[in-house]
Amino acid sequence: MGVAGEQSLRRRVYRELEPEAREAPGLSWSNRALTVLILVAVFEAVVETEPLIAGGRELLFHLLEFSLGLIFLAEYAARLWIAVENPAYAKSRFPRLRYAVTPIAIIDLLAVLPSLFAFGGGGTLVLRFFRILRMLRLAKLGRTSRAWQAMIDAVYDRRYELTLTFAILLVATMMGGSLVYWAEADAQPEKFGSIPRAIWWAIITLTTVGYGDTFPITPMGKFFGGMFAILGIALFALPTGIFAASFSDALQRHRQSRVRDSEDAK
Amino acid sequence: MGVAGEQSLRRRVYRELEPEAREAPGLSWSNRALTVLILVAVFEAVVETEPLIAGGRELLFHLLEFSLGLIFLAEYAARLWIAVENPAYAKSRFPRLRYAVTPIAIIDLLAVLPSLFAFGGGGTLVLRFFRILRMLRLAKLGRTSRAWQAMIDAVYDRRYELTLTFAILLVATMMGGSLVYWAEADAQPEKFGSIPRAIWWAIITLTTVGYGDTFPITPMGKFFGGMFAILGIALFALPTGIFAASFSDALQRHRQSRVRDSEDAK
Amino acid sequence: MGVAGEQSLRRRVYRELEPEAREAPGLSWSNRALTVLILVAVFEAVVETEPLIAGGRELLFHLLEFSLGLIFLAEYAARLWIAVENPAYAKSRFPRLRYAVTPIAIIDLLAVLPSLFAFGGGGTLVLRFFRILRMLRLAKLGRTSRAWQAMIDAVYDRRYELTLTFAILLVATMMGGSLVYWAEADAQPEKFGSIPRAIWWAIITLTTVGYGDTFPITPMGKFFGGMFAILGIALFALPTGIFAASFSDALQRHRQSRVRDSEDAK
Amino acid sequence: MGVAGEQSLRRRVYRELEPEAREAPGLSWSNRALTVLILVAVFEAVVETEPLIAGGRELLFHLLEFSLGLIFLAEYAARLWIAVENPAYAKSRFPRLRYAVTPIAIIDLLAVLPSLFAFGGGGTLVLRFFRILRMLRLAKLGRTSRAWQAMIDAVYDRRYELTLTFAILLVATMMGGSLVYWAEADAQPEKFGSIPRAIWWAIITLTTVGYGDTFPITPMGKFFGGMFAILGIALFALPTGIFAASFSDALQRHRQSRVRDSEDAK
Repeated sequence: MGVAGEQSLRRRVYRELEPEAREAPGLSWSNRALTVLILVAVFEAVVETEPLIAGGRELLFHLLEFSLGLIFLAEYAARLWIAVENPAYAKSRFPRLRYAVTPIAIIDLLAVLPSLFAFGGGGTLVLRFFRILRMLRLAKLGRTSRAWQAMIDAVYDRRYELTLTFAILLVATMMGGSLVYWAEADAQPEKFGSIPRAIWWAIITLTTVGYGDTFPITPMGKFFGGMFAILGIALFALPTGIFAASFSDALQRHRQSRVRDSEDAK
Repeated sequence: MGVAGEQSLRRRVYRELEPEAREAPGLSWSNRALTVLILVAVFEAVVETEPLIAGGRELLFHLLEFSLGLIFLAEYAARLWIAVENPAYAKSRFPRLRYAVTPIAIIDLLAVLPSLFAFGGGGTLVLRFFRILRMLRLAKLGRTSRAWQAMIDAVYDRRYELTLTFAILLVATMMGGSLVYWAEADAQPEKFGSIPRAIWWAIITLTTVGYGDTFPITPMGKFFGGMFAILGIALFALPTGIFAASFSDALQRHRQSRVRDSEDAK
Repeated sequence: MGVAGEQSLRRRVYRELEPEAREAPGLSWSNRALTVLILVAVFEAVVETEPLIAGGRELLFHLLEFSLGLIFLAEYAARLWIAVENPAYAKSRFPRLRYAVTPIAIIDLLAVLPSLFAFGGGGTLVLRFFRILRMLRLAKLGRTSRAWQAMIDAVYDRRYELTLTFAILLVATMMGGSLVYWAEADAQPEKFGSIPRAIWWAIITLTTVGYGDTFPITPMGKFFGGMFAILGIALFALPTGIFAASFSDALQRHRQSRVRDSEDAK
Repeated sequence: MGVAGEQSLRRRVYRELEPEAREAPGLSWSNRALTVLILVAVFEAVVETEPLIAGGRELLFHLLEFSLGLIFLAEYAARLWIAVENPAYAKSRFPRLRYAVTPIAIIDLLAVLPSLFAFGGGGTLVLRFFRILRMLRLAKLGRTSRAWQAMIDAVYDRRYELTLTFAILLVATMMGGSLVYWAEADAQPEKFGSIPRAIWWAIITLTTVGYGDTFPITPMGKFFGGMFAILGIALFALPTGIFAASFSDALQRHRQSRVRDSEDAK
């Protein structure tokens, strides 16, 4: 195979692997297969930690993990190889190095490496950390879709409003937490004995999660807590609503530009 | 009664039972009666399982159930009989068989059969499964209304956006669950000792249900958990809002087409 | 005072007490005073039941209650007296009787009567029922405002959509409750041993209240429960959103008609 | 330095400190620095109360607090000094006194004073109250931004609708609380033995927080409680939705007027 043949193959692999370079709409077959493999790998990494399921089947899980790791390593190598085809890196002197230091390539590598080294028993924090690293593969899903871009656009478009409402929420949480701290610290020192503890209560109340691990018990604390719940939840609806509306707009724009692109291609 | 008489009766029964074939707006009287009977049957199936209510009245409930089962069996037979009138199946060689294998006819049969066989005492899983099968009658309610169609349209119209936001939610749930698993697994091995267990916590927090069976107790876990609650709930508002807006549009379209239909009929 | 003088006084009292007959915008002074008295009476009825506050001050509370009762009785008598001025009842042969049997007049009477009879000690259900009857005065607030009308309009405008979505919610609650009943009845017979008990769980989960008194503990129950929470909460957003949008429209219409009325009056 | 020099310096300080007087968009450098210092001071005040963090480092925290207090005192003095430049107070005979009695200046002073006096050990209510006073600095954040103004506008624009919906919520809470009080008072006198206690339950249910400290246990109480949860949460969505929409409008207006201002400035 001559240089021209290699270049032609590289170009074809580039069009296959890089969604931006693809002419037809949708994902290419290899990217679809990789999406499925990512989901399988994440499912495997999740299930592996549950002793009720994985107990006694450690070898099976390790083999599956290792095989998936080899495939993703091959994908990583392929993406390094085709980086020279990408116009974004082509101007650089070392296009492959340029690609290798992008956040996405680093995440790829970090997610692949733990799969290739066998880990012994034990449940240490370090081992657990490496297991979670493998979850980073999910971020690759984001790369092959446009969802993350729409989310980033949504936040960026309304950064002014979101900052304001988060500031209001911050002030409200501090004030509410402090008031209930003031009322409850004597009655429940373990749960409301400091403002950070009261802020945990305030966050769990404001988000309406309400685990029930901490709640006011004095009449004064219940009065402040009830007022805070009613007013605070209305406040919490502000950033959520603004973000949802902005995300909806961003998706609309993406959809329209996609339609326009496919019409231009005709 | 001659063949013509039977055909004329069959046609009238078809117009009575099939909402699509009815000329006047609204539900026919027999469909209204069946709707009431379905609600009675479901109420009976629900109440029958509660020993505080049904205790000592087993025979009464069995008789009611059996009578309702006979009525619904008659309805099933009638629908089989009139299937030849339905233009959708008329082209088929065996229109009644064609109707009998539609999902709705299978659900009908599955929901009717358990009512006709008496079940002895005991609370086995199989018996309980058959009891729940009877609930499938509720799906018949959907057939006589257009609500399910509007819901399916709503999901289909925004399948792209909903897939994206569910993917984001999936990633967020995995990441959030993994982070709190990392922080809490040593402190609460029973509740956060594996990622699937931490995902149960993440789902119950993200939906703001917050039963209080699992919640972080370490400072690190509370910090990650609080951040996750605040950001995650904003994420959860995305598919809910998209679906609600799309459902509202679909209902609007259905309403307009209904108005147009009734104007055309004039 | 002659008959003409009495009629002229009655007409003035009618314009003072009946918001619809008032020419100037807003509430008349006597209606404002009555609104404050209603709030005082409700506050008194609420606080009276709390032994930590009312203990030892029973006589004080009874005197206050009795005085307020006399004022509201006088108001009831005045409204009966002016009923003949109201065009809505004027055509009737017995306009005062016609007014006395309207739901609002009956609620007025029911709310006033318990205040005028002293009640001894004891906490029987009957006494408690009479105490709550006094809360009905709050419904009088609704009469003097237009909020209830806007709410009724909001529900009526979208009765079709709301019925559909409530039907969907009903089906979802039944299905979700039955599935978790199927999975959990053996593990938690006390909490999931019958479908009505499982429906209590389903309602508390669907509304995202999540008290934590009942929650699935088996892996199967947690899987179904988690799915149900995610999908069900999106369903629950449907009627809430439809109702909120419709209420907002109804308020807008009321506001515009009020502006138009006040412009016509000029 | 002559009078003219002092006036010129005062004018420059005024333009630096007063966002309204600033010509360029955004915050001046000194206001940015003050914002950061406010956040540091609040963070310090929060963390100081947590014995797990502050234990043994009391002196460090006291020094930091005292230094920050001096800076904020200097800022307070500077704002007093420049008050004569502000057109809003310039017409007054004593512009600085006029400024000193504005709510914001009083809050400033109240928030600064506790920082300048060392407080001994102990956890008395008074000490705790002074600690929380320092949180008032957060209100200064609001002054340098326009978020609070947008919120006040949002509430004011819809004061009529918000009053109505809060009245409806009040009535619903009272009615729901009373009904469940009626059903549960005998079974759980400690939790539902009076209407105020039942209202605590009603608020925690209506806001969907659901701590799980109080919930109905009798069949009647569960029936009323479930109905109340379903209907009440739809009601609670009304003021939240109205407020969120109005806040979004107010932000939009603020944004447009800011754009217009910056265009006029060109």
